[in-house]
Amino acid sequence: MFDLDAYLAVKIPVTQAMGIRFGGRDRSGFALVAPLRLNLNDKGSAFAGSLATLATLCGWAYTQTLINDAGVDAEVVVARSTLHYLRPGRGDLRAHCAAPESVAVESFLSSLRARGRARWSLQVELRSGAELVLQFQGYYRATLRR
Amino acid sequence: MFDLDAYLAVKIPVTQAMGIRFGGRDRSGFALVAPLRLNLNDKGSAFAGSLATLATLCGWAYTQTLINDAGVDAEVVVARSTLHYLRPGRGDLRAHCAAPESVAVESFLSSLRARGRARWSLQVELRSGAELVLQFQGYYRATLRR
Repeated sequence: MFDLDAYLAVKIPVTQAMGIRFGGRDRSGFALVAPLRLNLNDKGSAFAGSLATLATLCGWAYTQTLINDAGVDAEVVVARSTLHYLRPGRGDLRAHCAAPESVAVESFLSSLRARGRARWSLQVELRSGAELVLQFQGYYRATLRR
Repeated sequence: MFDLDAYLAVKIPVTQAMGIRFGGRDRSGFALVAPLRLNLNDKGSAFAGSLATLATLCGWAYTQTLINDAGVDAEVVVARSTLHYLRPGRGDLRAHCAAPESVAVESFLSSLRARGRARWSLQVELRSGAELVLQFQGYYRATLRR
């Protein structure tokens, strides 16, 4: 099992300043969390840069975890994203990446194994307290390592 | 003159972990910079979250600086953005927000003064070393403070 929190702490140190941690995973998807107090802006609400980072990283971490748990050695990058900021964030942050249908997951992993690369689009919703504050769509690419 | 670096250090502390600083301003636009070494990812290149943060903040800081220097008391938020990640970043980071035509700047400030709000779209290019690594379009809203 991939230890995401340890990986982030060592490999992507900026995530620690934001207090980003694994927030759970089930059939509906994959979550990352971060406390508001480390991610404040000049208006006393959640900093847009932290929201963008948490959402982008959530889709990346979901994809990387899926690949690692399938026993495949591949790296994942974000290629494009679209973000809609809906309202100020006043509570702790939770990004949730919706898991695609299982047939799409199998197709993604099959393409990665057979052709050495795969790509897909993921939807992330970011809540602050109970409120939806950001809708994110990201397009990610995975490539087998040599 | 608005001291952006001091403002970021006090009001948006996460920016300090990324080493984000004012990078200059002229008729062509407005820049923010950050060192690569504070913004590495697991692949040894620039972390996408840092790129997204630097670009988003660059459009915000350009708009907020413009408003402050015009003697207007207003706050600025990002409402939407679209990001295209072009290649891995291997050098220090520099985001440059292109200044709109002067007629657009005057129109933005006039709307803000007359109607209490204004909005516009800005283009930010982010280079890492000499290479263009991210193209960003952001839509920002400004609102007069009471």
